[in-house]
Amino acid sequence: MGKYKIGIVGYGNLGKGAETAVTASEDMELCAIFSRRDNIKPVSGVPVVGFGELASWKGKLDAVILCSGSATDLPQQGPMFAKYFTTVDSFDTHAKIPEYFKAIDEVAKENGNLSLISVGWDPGMFSIMRLYNEAVLPEGNHYTFWGEGVSQGHSDALRRIDGVLNAKQYTVPVQEALDAVRNGANPQLSTRQKHKRVCYIVAKDSADKALIEKTVVEMPNYFADYDTTVNFITADVFEKEHSGMAHGGFVLRSGQTADGEKHVIEYSLKLGSNPSFTSSVLTAYARAAIRMAQNGQTGAATVFDVAPAMLSVKSGEALRKELL
Amino acid sequence: MGKYKIGIVGYGNLGKGAETAVTASEDMELCAIFSRRDNIKPVSGVPVVGFGELASWKGKLDAVILCSGSATDLPQQGPMFAKYFTTVDSFDTHAKIPEYFKAIDEVAKENGNLSLISVGWDPGMFSIMRLYNEAVLPEGNHYTFWGEGVSQGHSDALRRIDGVLNAKQYTVPVQEALDAVRNGANPQLSTRQKHKRVCYIVAKDSADKALIEKTVVEMPNYFADYDTTVNFITADVFEKEHSGMAHGGFVLRSGQTADGEKHVIEYSLKLGSNPSFTSSVLTAYARAAIRMAQNGQTGAATVFDVAPAMLSVKSGEALRKELL
Repeated sequence: MGKYKIGIVGYGNLGKGAETAVTASEDMELCAIFSRRDNIKPVSGVPVVGFGELASWKGKLDAVILCSGSATDLPQQGPMFAKYFTTVDSFDTHAKIPEYFKAIDEVAKENGNLSLISVGWDPGMFSIMRLYNEAVLPEGNHYTFWGEGVSQGHSDALRRIDGVLNAKQYTVPVQEALDAVRNGANPQLSTRQKHKRVCYIVAKDSADKALIEKTVVEMPNYFADYDTTVNFITADVFEKEHSGMAHGGFVLRSGQTADGEKHVIEYSLKLGSNPSFTSSVLTAYARAAIRMAQNGQTGAATVFDVAPAMLSVKSGEALRKELL
Repeated sequence: MGKYKIGIVGYGNLGKGAETAVTASEDMELCAIFSRRDNIKPVSGVPVVGFGELASWKGKLDAVILCSGSATDLPQQGPMFAKYFTTVDSFDTHAKIPEYFKAIDEVAKENGNLSLISVGWDPGMFSIMRLYNEAVLPEGNHYTFWGEGVSQGHSDALRRIDGVLNAKQYTVPVQEALDAVRNGANPQLSTRQKHKRVCYIVAKDSADKALIEKTVVEMPNYFADYDTTVNFITADVFEKEHSGMAHGGFVLRSGQTADGEKHVIEYSLKLGSNPSFTSSVLTAYARAAIRMAQNGQTGAATVFDVAPAMLSVKSGEALRKELL
């Protein structure tokens, strides 16, 4: 049996991560990178294909991994690629998932393709944990903590403030809250009690730093409901200490079985790089999507619909022997 | 649609846990408890059925949860029940899983039934984590730590020593090893470096305690390869402080994505009662088994073959909205 033929859409951090992950997978072969830009030079040396040539690649790829952003690209590109290919994406705008699912489902079904949406770590691995935890421990509370890690949306919000040259915002779980959940205290936690926000800002020399800080900590939705710390730093320090993309978080469930016995389940990720890990998860789910499509499944699906064994290069027999 | 009709085999700690879990499930109805004993009085008041009457219950139950032990009962009862029913069991003799799988698979296929084997937390939830972790982070090491919790096999070994009236053995993860793995050090850990064994023994007044202790710490396979502590206590203290069935453990994977970025994944369980949690997991998988059987699947399968959504009482739409 030949290797699975894979295409990647987009060549930012996520696309580059998928490129190395696919190349490292023994059962996959990277065949093309789809991009609107014609000036990219993929490390793998595969051809760069424009969006106008999609139809001519139909039937030549087993799956396409969409590595574009959720804000504006995926809502357009998701259905566009689902028309021709088995697709996997990391659509992560939680509130719009039902709408996105529906749009993809229609196109994919109509064209006999399968699309796995919202794959990654949250949504993704964290979602899987929330589901398993609720199913095996129906009576209880679940908690998700994010961080320590960079929030892109919050960093963007800082950069839009007058006088700000560059900025990064770290979401940090409140240790006391995490400990209380771990100890089975089942606390009711307000937004402020769960996470704090730590900002690093490079300001213009002429900027009013006091005003910037006030603007940050009082900004509705983004910062007003949190304990927010603002640190002003130089461009040099910013470059040296705040260019990483580490992230992670915790999913916990604290509850009791029907006989009153108490249990706590915890899952955590400590990620050196958010896009690297996300693209590695996407690559594993591309394998699953191909197999599910080969089994005749069509339409949109999520990580909830994928049996764990579908993700592995190993046979069922090897999995039972080595990992069960 | 009516409720799923459930039978339970065995009425020890696991069977009693399953009884409360099934009774608490909104979509299930407990219909019978199968037992060799005729003197049990189920809390739920359902009829107790002897093993001779299995054939007459065929078609009347959607699934049967086998709550018997792996050593001698399940190898016999698994195939016996798989002949008539969709079954779920917690067969946990790791080394014999391939053989057990094969035996069940043949009977279940022949009779058009589906059997989920080795469901629980290890094998079970821990196995699922090992598989997911390896699939999304192919380059790395995985580590499983058990405890703090009682090992039944090791407690039995203690009780077989001359002069011992009663005994419990706790398996305890070595904190330094756990921390090293969490910090991404990827250590090579010997048996002794991963777990220690702590024993509580009630000895006969006439017993030679020094000899008992020597017998324990030098016992091959069970204790010789571990740092083992022996504590002699009274029957009173034993009753008061060592009658619980708490357990738990940790599954970790430490590795790197193909681009060299490092990541650590950790899953842990802190269980108030081992059989209570195991029976709760079995109950969720009974739901999945029924649905998979209704989809026409037959033969033996494991937790690796079950998509997470199969476990939940919620619809796909509700799951995507609430948990994705």
